[in-house]
Amino acid sequence: MSHIRGRFQKAADNLVAEYTASIPFDWRLYKQDIGGSIAHAKMLAKKGIISEEEAVIISQGLESIREEIEQGKFQFKSEQEDIHMAIEARLMEKVGEVGGKLHTARSRNDQVALDLRLWTKEAIAETLVRLREFQHALISLAEANKSVIMPGYTHLQPAQPVLLAHHLLAYFEMLQRDIDRFNDCSKRVDVMPLGSGALAGAAYNIDREFLARELGFGQISQNSIDAVSDRDFVVEYEAAASLGMMHLSRLAEEIILWSSAEFNFIELDEAYATGSSIMPQKKNPDVAELVRGKTGRIYGRLMALLTTMKALPLAYNRDMQEDKEGLFDTVDTLLSTLEVFTGMVATLKVKAENTERAVKQGYILATDLADYLVKKGEAFRTAHEVVGRLVSYAMKKGKSFSELSLAEYKEFSPLFGEDVYSITVESSLAARDITGGTAPREVARALAAAKKISSNRF
Amino acid sequence: MSHIRGRFQKAADNLVAEYTASIPFDWRLYKQDIGGSIAHAKMLAKKGIISEEEAVIISQGLESIREEIEQGKFQFKSEQEDIHMAIEARLMEKVGEVGGKLHTARSRNDQVALDLRLWTKEAIAETLVRLREFQHALISLAEANKSVIMPGYTHLQPAQPVLLAHHLLAYFEMLQRDIDRFNDCSKRVDVMPLGSGALAGAAYNIDREFLARELGFGQISQNSIDAVSDRDFVVEYEAAASLGMMHLSRLAEEIILWSSAEFNFIELDEAYATGSSIMPQKKNPDVAELVRGKTGRIYGRLMALLTTMKALPLAYNRDMQEDKEGLFDTVDTLLSTLEVFTGMVATLKVKAENTERAVKQGYILATDLADYLVKKGEAFRTAHEVVGRLVSYAMKKGKSFSELSLAEYKEFSPLFGEDVYSITVESSLAARDITGGTAPREVARALAAAKKISSNRF
Amino acid sequence: MSHIRGRFQKAADNLVAEYTASIPFDWRLYKQDIGGSIAHAKMLAKKGIISEEEAVIISQGLESIREEIEQGKFQFKSEQEDIHMAIEARLMEKVGEVGGKLHTARSRNDQVALDLRLWTKEAIAETLVRLREFQHALISLAEANKSVIMPGYTHLQPAQPVLLAHHLLAYFEMLQRDIDRFNDCSKRVDVMPLGSGALAGAAYNIDREFLARELGFGQISQNSIDAVSDRDFVVEYEAAASLGMMHLSRLAEEIILWSSAEFNFIELDEAYATGSSIMPQKKNPDVAELVRGKTGRIYGRLMALLTTMKALPLAYNRDMQEDKEGLFDTVDTLLSTLEVFTGMVATLKVKAENTERAVKQGYILATDLADYLVKKGEAFRTAHEVVGRLVSYAMKKGKSFSELSLAEYKEFSPLFGEDVYSITVESSLAARDITGGTAPREVARALAAAKKISSNRF
Amino acid sequence: MSHIRGRFQKAADNLVAEYTASIPFDWRLYKQDIGGSIAHAKMLAKKGIISEEEAVIISQGLESIREEIEQGKFQFKSEQEDIHMAIEARLMEKVGEVGGKLHTARSRNDQVALDLRLWTKEAIAETLVRLREFQHALISLAEANKSVIMPGYTHLQPAQPVLLAHHLLAYFEMLQRDIDRFNDCSKRVDVMPLGSGALAGAAYNIDREFLARELGFGQISQNSIDAVSDRDFVVEYEAAASLGMMHLSRLAEEIILWSSAEFNFIELDEAYATGSSIMPQKKNPDVAELVRGKTGRIYGRLMALLTTMKALPLAYNRDMQEDKEGLFDTVDTLLSTLEVFTGMVATLKVKAENTERAVKQGYILATDLADYLVKKGEAFRTAHEVVGRLVSYAMKKGKSFSELSLAEYKEFSPLFGEDVYSITVESSLAARDITGGTAPREVARALAAAKKISSNRF
Repeated sequence: MSHIRGRFQKAADNLVAEYTASIPFDWRLYKQDIGGSIAHAKMLAKKGIISEEEAVIISQGLESIREEIEQGKFQFKSEQEDIHMAIEARLMEKVGEVGGKLHTARSRNDQVALDLRLWTKEAIAETLVRLREFQHALISLAEANKSVIMPGYTHLQPAQPVLLAHHLLAYFEMLQRDIDRFNDCSKRVDVMPLGSGALAGAAYNIDREFLARELGFGQISQNSIDAVSDRDFVVEYEAAASLGMMHLSRLAEEIILWSSAEFNFIELDEAYATGSSIMPQKKNPDVAELVRGKTGRIYGRLMALLTTMKALPLAYNRDMQEDKEGLFDTVDTLLSTLEVFTGMVATLKVKAENTERAVKQGYILATDLADYLVKKGEAFRTAHEVVGRLVSYAMKKGKSFSELSLAEYKEFSPLFGEDVYSITVESSLAARDITGGTAPREVARALAAAKKISSNRF
Repeated sequence: MSHIRGRFQKAADNLVAEYTASIPFDWRLYKQDIGGSIAHAKMLAKKGIISEEEAVIISQGLESIREEIEQGKFQFKSEQEDIHMAIEARLMEKVGEVGGKLHTARSRNDQVALDLRLWTKEAIAETLVRLREFQHALISLAEANKSVIMPGYTHLQPAQPVLLAHHLLAYFEMLQRDIDRFNDCSKRVDVMPLGSGALAGAAYNIDREFLARELGFGQISQNSIDAVSDRDFVVEYEAAASLGMMHLSRLAEEIILWSSAEFNFIELDEAYATGSSIMPQKKNPDVAELVRGKTGRIYGRLMALLTTMKALPLAYNRDMQEDKEGLFDTVDTLLSTLEVFTGMVATLKVKAENTERAVKQGYILATDLADYLVKKGEAFRTAHEVVGRLVSYAMKKGKSFSELSLAEYKEFSPLFGEDVYSITVESSLAARDITGGTAPREVARALAAAKKISSNRF
Repeated sequence: MSHIRGRFQKAADNLVAEYTASIPFDWRLYKQDIGGSIAHAKMLAKKGIISEEEAVIISQGLESIREEIEQGKFQFKSEQEDIHMAIEARLMEKVGEVGGKLHTARSRNDQVALDLRLWTKEAIAETLVRLREFQHALISLAEANKSVIMPGYTHLQPAQPVLLAHHLLAYFEMLQRDIDRFNDCSKRVDVMPLGSGALAGAAYNIDREFLARELGFGQISQNSIDAVSDRDFVVEYEAAASLGMMHLSRLAEEIILWSSAEFNFIELDEAYATGSSIMPQKKNPDVAELVRGKTGRIYGRLMALLTTMKALPLAYNRDMQEDKEGLFDTVDTLLSTLEVFTGMVATLKVKAENTERAVKQGYILATDLADYLVKKGEAFRTAHEVVGRLVSYAMKKGKSFSELSLAEYKEFSPLFGEDVYSITVESSLAARDITGGTAPREVARALAAAKKISSNRF
Repeated sequence: MSHIRGRFQKAADNLVAEYTASIPFDWRLYKQDIGGSIAHAKMLAKKGIISEEEAVIISQGLESIREEIEQGKFQFKSEQEDIHMAIEARLMEKVGEVGGKLHTARSRNDQVALDLRLWTKEAIAETLVRLREFQHALISLAEANKSVIMPGYTHLQPAQPVLLAHHLLAYFEMLQRDIDRFNDCSKRVDVMPLGSGALAGAAYNIDREFLARELGFGQISQNSIDAVSDRDFVVEYEAAASLGMMHLSRLAEEIILWSSAEFNFIELDEAYATGSSIMPQKKNPDVAELVRGKTGRIYGRLMALLTTMKALPLAYNRDMQEDKEGLFDTVDTLLSTLEVFTGMVATLKVKAENTERAVKQGYILATDLADYLVKKGEAFRTAHEVVGRLVSYAMKKGKSFSELSLAEYKEFSPLFGEDVYSITVESSLAARDITGGTAPREVARALAAAKKISSNRF
């Protein structure tokens, strides 16, 4: 064994350093880390723990490090475990011993929690903007196609006529719930953890409320052990993102279907479709496919963190370092997906002639015929059976509803009268004039309401 | 092939009926279904769509069916696809033709959405009660052990002394976030979908606001297609349950550790531990292990529904029938876990002598020594290095901090004075007198606050 | 707290018993448990640990219990923790004290491992049969539609003509890999764990090889701690089932697409589709939708067990009790899905006129035109560009390939000759006469090979 | 809307290119891509589809590109969608028009499938090596501590004494199953897909068997549609990796427990533990924690791809591009985890005095006492009850088994004799002398067998 041990001891330093390092990904927290440290230095000075001069030196040092990083001049070294150590080490180089005072009354555990919360707050703000933009694109597309009629589907079978705008507003509602969820999540992110120390609380008379104000937090954490152990807010972002991607995957699926030769309901803008050199006629909906595919990726990230956090004893454990890559990737993926999908929706063209032809095939007005009988006094279940037999008859005869004679109608129910011929796709739509229904008047109202909602601040 | 086809056609009816039936699990919605139908009948009468007499007959019929079910007299038949059809069919048997009018202006799609929302609302209400009870058990245990000191751990290594009550309050905070999340979720459940029809909206002049009031909903849905396609609220319950189980799995892990012969911090009440006939001394923490194990189950249910909903085109698809079993199992598991875990926490005994012995081993006050030097003027990083060398020295000598002479201390820093001996576990705790810290005064305040919060209504 | 404690102690017995009981689901292991116990008794007698007479009494007692269970006469009581205790307790009732000797040299830990392995072996055997039957249905459908041509899709866009039989054989290949995987899994299930005791091995001179032979196992486990801690075989079944369901979900998706009014490629047998009373023309592909939906369920079960097993210290922990419900549900779901899906495939009718009409739309032969030029000496990339320009031209002119004049062709490349008009859907198919290609001759060969493979024993 | 549309069209090119590009990750396939292309060129020449000279020019061009990449001179441009296009474009720059012939009889779909299979084959080979090395480290540690006794645990409670070597060999068995699974997976990777074209098969008389031989594949794919749609092998690698990580997470958990102050069974080598500047006595098991944490990451990747592949219609869809990042990360994580964990195991020191002290506490020999009575003729269940009462008595008296007098023993059963005092930890171990048991002789045999197995080639 000594041989093996020897071999490993030699190589271990590098191997382990590489395996445990977080700087390859947590460098993205540099802005939050520096902002948090400047606020911390200010607070230490305010409370007399360090002098005002020391606070100024530290803050200026930190700001110059921020510049170095943003100008690409900062040396990230792999032997620096994480961004926090990297910045502190550089600070010591720049300002000397006094830099060693910055970490007073602070621990890496509460510092990491702070940085990640600041980062997530910004991510949520950006996510909300992108969700809103997506809503705007849906509204624009709906408005531009206000009177387009298409089949409403259940089981991917045409069921009843609906307005395309009504269909698009279904997604508006989903996105609105996503906005609500990210807003709810942001309440739980908006908690300032600094002062929790390694786990037991700082042993200094610090001003946590001041820190919260400086850093723009609405609350301070109420239990130091929880504050350094808690990654709920990351899980919650990922859960909200999973629901959001689920919604987008449904629209992506529809866009793929609608782009098919068989549906042929829409045409994607060239920028959002991929052709091939040999088949210029093909417009592959690659973007929609990738949106659909990336849904799995986001679900996987959620599952990963839930699994990682399962059964961890308090307080901090190194397992929790796995939170960041998943969150960063989730945010990157969701934001870029929303951006590209918004563009795709904003630029697609609806082929109204095709959606309307699709509506006219089949017996899509069967429900309306039953409602007609109900309104003439038939019981609902009976009316349904009557229409069922009528449709079977019409299919056998190869006739559409409008091609049936009144005599034929009356064979099935004496309640049928001449006015049966006034049942049309348009009358079907108009009849659903109820909050949430597809009647043109109601959809116009809903569109106006959606515009109003989506022009609100969050 | 005709042979195969023949074979299958014969068997298919039963096979398919069994495969597609939801009544083996959705019978649990009977109360919601009947309540929803009675409200619907009332509304139909109010709007003159059916007569008052018809509404009374229907309502009485439905109420007698509810009694039949609750008295175990109702015949659930496998050929009835689902609970909605089973109840309607029975209604027709009982009240005849008029029963066929109940379904006017309604579709199974909005009816299912309604029933599931009603059920989930009740599930959330019950979940909130159980979460509160769990918080009460945590508070009681903390109060009963107000002055018990234990090691606070990071990386499962003793790091700093903390009060057990402080540790328990970390879980109070987690549970409080769970309560917040379920409350947030309930806002999105509290939406009345009836009137959405199959997908396009009801073609009758119905009163959706009346239905919402009758059924205790705060809002009505705004888009019929979304209303029948939306299962966000189920996913959201399952996501909140996953986070809740994650929290419980962490405490379960700690209870298992603390029950081990090596930690020996607590003793479980016999009712919550399993012995073996041969090893009566063993108290296996089976309940805690099952809680930890069932965490996977709940995560799996969340992943299942997210996957099922991925890329489903609008509106209703039969895939969505998979929502119920997962939700029911999630709710059952979470509620029973909370109940049994509350009892386990409420009855466990803390072995304070052992937690306190554990605190006294090692150099758990090293951080306090460093803070001592910082307060005497040393820079934080330097103070840490000094104490690091001091600990190494003490380890080599086999001495505890209190066994080192002042001369020995002064070898490491001239700042050490006689008052270094006043650094104790108690002084360490007391020093963390900051919001969220482990100082006894602060923990008492936090306990009082927790009691107040947990006595609030939701 | 005494109040709370009192309240909980009273209720705890029932609560905990219910929470921890596995008999509501592990009763399904009764056959395996009894079979294992009979073999164990035989072995004990063979080794002189109990007498032959005792073994006979025990075995007869066990067999009569099996009968009781199978005739529905056995009293399952909730206070019996699990099926193993229930059977042993009943045995003691039946045969008295001697029943207490059965558990010699055995522990519940190795007994549970044995029973679950026996059950899983049978489940795999049944799964293999159902996978084979599904393959047969695919082959039958392919044979019955041997010459049906359809568009092959990429990105759900028609790309090249293929034979439907070729498309169906793609699923044959997937299923064949599923069969291979379940076979591989069965090697790791086929390991006899009895003799491992609670975890350290039995302290008796027992004959494990005899037990293996009696119970039909190929190997005995090699480490007692591993043998009672290992649930790999359950995870592996669930992983193989997840891949299998993924395959089925892809075909389910296609069946749903093909059943749509827009594709209209197939007609489902009535037994496998759901109509509505009012829309008899609609054939909703509910079965296919449920297959697609249940895919999430199976994935969730896999994720659940992986999560449950994560980070469990050796050896047995009660968390592992969560293995069974997930496995049982996975097996039930996969088997019933395969059965019902086999029937659906076996009975569906292909609308060849529609698949062939779909092939003829568009410029699906563009690749063939490029290959034509390559074969005349053009470089591949150049040929593609030429055809790309040609297609653009044809689209603008609204002409199909066959409607272009030779002069028009020659505008794009002098290599075009009269023989360009012999490029047809049929020639396109025939050209792909390579192992795995869609040429009719090759597909006939592949069909014959598939028939041969699927007639093999596993 | 024109405003929105305008805004998006401008930005879309970059956005979409970035969103859809795979070159940021699939550059890792360059070696496989070039190797595959050289074999393809050779085959084209062999079949006379291109000339020998052309093949030589193409191959030399490709080899010089490989050098450019490996020397860091290759310009990866973001506008090149993927590595395949990047290499082909560079080839055209280098060798001109003739480079355009390389893609004859090939499509990007079968090319990607080929490259990913080649990459996965290498990944499996490397994985197997690392698994073996881990086995070697386990064996070395076991041999170096051959006679160390520790408590065997169930429910994290001491249950029976075991040899540490026996415990470690439990992991050897798990790893052996992992090796078997990766080997099984490799059979399904070892299938050459080239010749499948875009989906329908190549329309050229190519030699697929030659390609398989050149590229080291054992089989060729049998269905072109399946060949370009299949990612089973990626899922299967990820499923096997998930099981492997699950095993490692269990040992990681144990290492964390054993490193705790309370267990104190082992000491990690400094290279594999993290101290803190202030607490040099602390050795945080960060590596083990990260292994445990990264288990979630791998599970998440599995779930992601399963979700992505769910319900995808045949054949290629762009969703499938999501396969690579997950696979690459899974392989990177598993390989680095195995490497660093092997080193950690190889260098850890066992504190035998502590594991042995732990064995001696409590009544860990209770089972042995019961076995003693059984061997004297008592029925198993009765023996257990007797010992149960005896242990209760001893606990009350505060005596260990060896401190009880024979008279006291005889109070509980007349079968106890003087030889009861020969029951020791050592006799307990020795009694388990059965295949898979913890008796020293058996463990020595098992160790020898493990060494033999792990010296085999795969």
